[in-house]
Amino acid sequence: MTQNNSSPALKIIPLGGLHEIGKNTCVFEINDEIILLDAGLAFPTDGMHGVNIVLPDMTYLRENRHKIKGMIVTHGHEDHIGGIAFHLKQFEIPIIYGPRLAMALLKDKLSEAGVTKRTELRTVGPRETVRLGKSFFVEFIRNTHSMADSFTVAIRTPVGVVIHTGDFKVDHTPVDGEYFDFQRLAEYGEKGVQCLISDSTNSELPGSTPSERAVFPNLDRIFAQAKGRLLVTTFASSVHRINMILELAKKNGRVVSVVGRSMLNLIAHARTLGYIKCEESLFQPLQVLQKLSDEHVLILTTGSQGEPMSAMTRIANGEHRQVKVREGDTVVFSANPIPGNTIAVVNTIDKLMMKGAKVIYGKEHGIHVSGHGCQEDQKLMLGLTRPKFFLPVHGEHRMLVKHSQTAQSVGVPAENMVIIDNGDVVELTATSMRIAGKVPSGIELVDTSRSGVVNSKVLKERQQLAGDGIVTVAAAIGWTGALIAKPQIHLSGVVTSLERSKLQASIETAIGTILRDRWNEFARPVGKDAQLEIDWVGLQTQIEREIQRTLRRDLQSNPMLVFLMQNPEEPSVREVSRERRTPAIAS
Amino acid sequence: MTQNNSSPALKIIPLGGLHEIGKNTCVFEINDEIILLDAGLAFPTDGMHGVNIVLPDMTYLRENRHKIKGMIVTHGHEDHIGGIAFHLKQFEIPIIYGPRLAMALLKDKLSEAGVTKRTELRTVGPRETVRLGKSFFVEFIRNTHSMADSFTVAIRTPVGVVIHTGDFKVDHTPVDGEYFDFQRLAEYGEKGVQCLISDSTNSELPGSTPSERAVFPNLDRIFAQAKGRLLVTTFASSVHRINMILELAKKNGRVVSVVGRSMLNLIAHARTLGYIKCEESLFQPLQVLQKLSDEHVLILTTGSQGEPMSAMTRIANGEHRQVKVREGDTVVFSANPIPGNTIAVVNTIDKLMMKGAKVIYGKEHGIHVSGHGCQEDQKLMLGLTRPKFFLPVHGEHRMLVKHSQTAQSVGVPAENMVIIDNGDVVELTATSMRIAGKVPSGIELVDTSRSGVVNSKVLKERQQLAGDGIVTVAAAIGWTGALIAKPQIHLSGVVTSLERSKLQASIETAIGTILRDRWNEFARPVGKDAQLEIDWVGLQTQIEREIQRTLRRDLQSNPMLVFLMQNPEEPSVREVSRERRTPAIAS
Repeated sequence: MTQNNSSPALKIIPLGGLHEIGKNTCVFEINDEIILLDAGLAFPTDGMHGVNIVLPDMTYLRENRHKIKGMIVTHGHEDHIGGIAFHLKQFEIPIIYGPRLAMALLKDKLSEAGVTKRTELRTVGPRETVRLGKSFFVEFIRNTHSMADSFTVAIRTPVGVVIHTGDFKVDHTPVDGEYFDFQRLAEYGEKGVQCLISDSTNSELPGSTPSERAVFPNLDRIFAQAKGRLLVTTFASSVHRINMILELAKKNGRVVSVVGRSMLNLIAHARTLGYIKCEESLFQPLQVLQKLSDEHVLILTTGSQGEPMSAMTRIANGEHRQVKVREGDTVVFSANPIPGNTIAVVNTIDKLMMKGAKVIYGKEHGIHVSGHGCQEDQKLMLGLTRPKFFLPVHGEHRMLVKHSQTAQSVGVPAENMVIIDNGDVVELTATSMRIAGKVPSGIELVDTSRSGVVNSKVLKERQQLAGDGIVTVAAAIGWTGALIAKPQIHLSGVVTSLERSKLQASIETAIGTILRDRWNEFARPVGKDAQLEIDWVGLQTQIEREIQRTLRRDLQSNPMLVFLMQNPEEPSVREVSRERRTPAIAS
Repeated sequence: MTQNNSSPALKIIPLGGLHEIGKNTCVFEINDEIILLDAGLAFPTDGMHGVNIVLPDMTYLRENRHKIKGMIVTHGHEDHIGGIAFHLKQFEIPIIYGPRLAMALLKDKLSEAGVTKRTELRTVGPRETVRLGKSFFVEFIRNTHSMADSFTVAIRTPVGVVIHTGDFKVDHTPVDGEYFDFQRLAEYGEKGVQCLISDSTNSELPGSTPSERAVFPNLDRIFAQAKGRLLVTTFASSVHRINMILELAKKNGRVVSVVGRSMLNLIAHARTLGYIKCEESLFQPLQVLQKLSDEHVLILTTGSQGEPMSAMTRIANGEHRQVKVREGDTVVFSANPIPGNTIAVVNTIDKLMMKGAKVIYGKEHGIHVSGHGCQEDQKLMLGLTRPKFFLPVHGEHRMLVKHSQTAQSVGVPAENMVIIDNGDVVELTATSMRIAGKVPSGIELVDTSRSGVVNSKVLKERQQLAGDGIVTVAAAIGWTGALIAKPQIHLSGVVTSLERSKLQASIETAIGTILRDRWNEFARPVGKDAQLEIDWVGLQTQIEREIQRTLRRDLQSNPMLVFLMQNPEEPSVREVSRERRTPAIAS
């Protein structure tokens, strides 16, 4: 498995995670063998109506499913494992290797989605090496991150070693005592790393990310000062943070209830696997807490990002059935809002304050630290691995650019790195790295509460409906060219100052005009028995155009128009034999 | 106009600006006389589909229009003057007093809206006092702010002096040399201020806001280092910033083109009124700039907040007809993103970088400062005016709470302040201040590009349409209870994996079921001649329910359903005389 100049190139194809934070998904391919590293989801942005999950377009893997030898998972965050259950409905992955906690969470997801059958899940430990196909040997190297049980991986391939950092920070004093394995990375660096693929999340920030432990004394002080109940929210997946909160709850004589499905789920798995260690009695249901005096109560909830359906948001809105916030409560936001969530978070804070709670939030309290390394941490990763080539991933464009500048500052030549986008095919050989092509790299919008994919046509329609509403018109037209009944009209989401009766009259006039002036274009006797032949589709199009014109004129707006025209399947003898007349109802 | 204990209370009624940043609008009322201080707009938040302006509910002023004596404008920002043109369509304001720049901008707005006729606009200068009605004497006191020509006002009323700060920062070195009038405020403080109403925007931030001049050396360095073209974006209304940018353009031998309607408009007024002073030749159209070498070009644009239709956003998207960004350009964002705009701004930055531009953004460059004072500035305002009562305004809830804590820290008793919401009626007497009632305080959503107000019904419909789409069904039913024609179906924005033909069949079955099983409930011969009487509305409701059930079952989703039923206005003799039969088309 040493470098071999005559061997074919390794293709590195990120399908997600580039020019974005989210849905990290990376394909490695060589000798007709493919492995997948992580497969995450992202959350919808503005205008993605009715969408709650965004996934990468997996066309490339679907079309090359026969090459897939297996998958590597670095850690259990949603942006690294949240897509797997969806993808397994499209193609098979024979085996998935990953850390214990991530595999436990993934197992649940696969069960829920009903896709457990043909995929083997295998847990791996630090310094364990697994083989996938003939070409890939992957070693799991312990790193430190906000999620417990997180790995950097070294992938030995026919063109050399590729190190993918996964998500990492450099935490010298990890809460769980699981130290960053600098030794193993340094050893790879010593032997020669062909390419480093590294986390760019915080590449715009100078300095180092503080240890997760840094929040401990600050939370400690806040907990000690709180006189009434304590409500604490953080990311459901922040096992280390939750461990500290539990330790401080015990220290301050508080009993803990956990509220919010994702946090309950994570804590259950983390306790089973030993990532959260505390007495059984520390956790109590809300009913028990209600009987305790306020200073013995701690409620740990989801909702640190102001998510609309989360526990903390429902508590703030007064909509949570069991937890009502009140004067004397202290609410702690042990998380910073992710860009895009700021307004939701501050609205939640305001509502909690209006209900009388003291709310502790904001950077100045030192109650949150990032799970991703800053520039100095990124330099250390580069310094340990001394890669020949460098590929910044896991970040928006300017973060990738900054990270590449950082890499240059520690000696990686500018020509040995590329800034890539999702779908770019990077070819790595023993002597070169270049962008060699492109595979499909769009997005798939999923509505998990409904029935699946929100395609771009549906999304576009929803955007038009949201912006301008819709006018629906139904008209039944007989074989004489007369309206059979009064046309019906319905408006939804339409802004207009026009009276309903005037709009009705306008639309009836529009229909009547076409039927009167242009009927003969669409209805003609043909053949020698002069049988009536009607171009209903052409007629419908003409009437629709006329109504559209009318709406533009009368509404000064541009709603979607749906015109449903019905006509009897065949003319009755009576109708056809009667003379052609102007429409009966339309004036 | 000294205090008079027997006089009635002054009502202070903010209709906007409380528990929010935006649409600042405050009513003062005493002795059946009303004056209005500022009337701004706000921008829509998530879910306000098709809305571009948010205004306060003006029911109270509409119903009390006869009491209105006039209006005071503190400065020309949109969140202080942007609502006036809309309100003048609902009620008259005999006279509006305000600073020259704000009045010039307002005049344009009123002309555009066609509401100039009955309102007199009067400009005022520093230390000028105007009288409104019998009860209000208002003195304009120069303050410093990001907008040029900005005032704090002292309102003498029968219950004492009320000082409303307007928007302010404490800038000891204002770019325009118009110094903060500490003397006049101190004089009021010495004589006795009954109530201070003060700007809370930055009340969460300790320390002082730096002078606008602080950005000068930083912009200077960036301008000096830029080798190619310079593109600079800032708030269109930041006259001081624009003046500095122009000065630096000249210093660096660059000619300036302004791109973006709002900035062109503001600069035109500011130049006419002398707030921007520079040679005519500094400004050149883009066509002239295209002939100059890159290092002599500066393009000043709108779009610092990533607004979708703004010049900078269109440039970043490659959609601007005249300006194409390219390798070698330096783009400077001399503005911080307002919360809610962060994602739009960073997306714009990324797109500019992808086109090869060097983009200078972010706090570390020191190229933006706030226009609002921080805690130490708020303390100075409190210290100068020494108010008996205190009313924090212009801020979200937690900002108002922080500001009240700041006021307490400088000696205002906690019982002498109230935290209020829009619509609260604060009664101020010579000896007391309390919340005495509530007036309507909702919001009005305006779609300025269309035809007006987006009411809550329309908004709710749009939200449903956006989230789930709409199914439209049309059916024409005759007096025999038979379908006259094949029912028509249309889907917009609906996610479904169901085949179209199956959905059509299901819906036809649903209609057919009701017509077959329940027709007799709705169609009955009545009277002695057994004339047919049909409850069409009842029938429609039944069929609609059945279709709704069918959709829920088949689509696993919940789109809006519009069912349009048509029926001939009277039965033909032939039809009624025929025997009742099952529907012909529905199976």
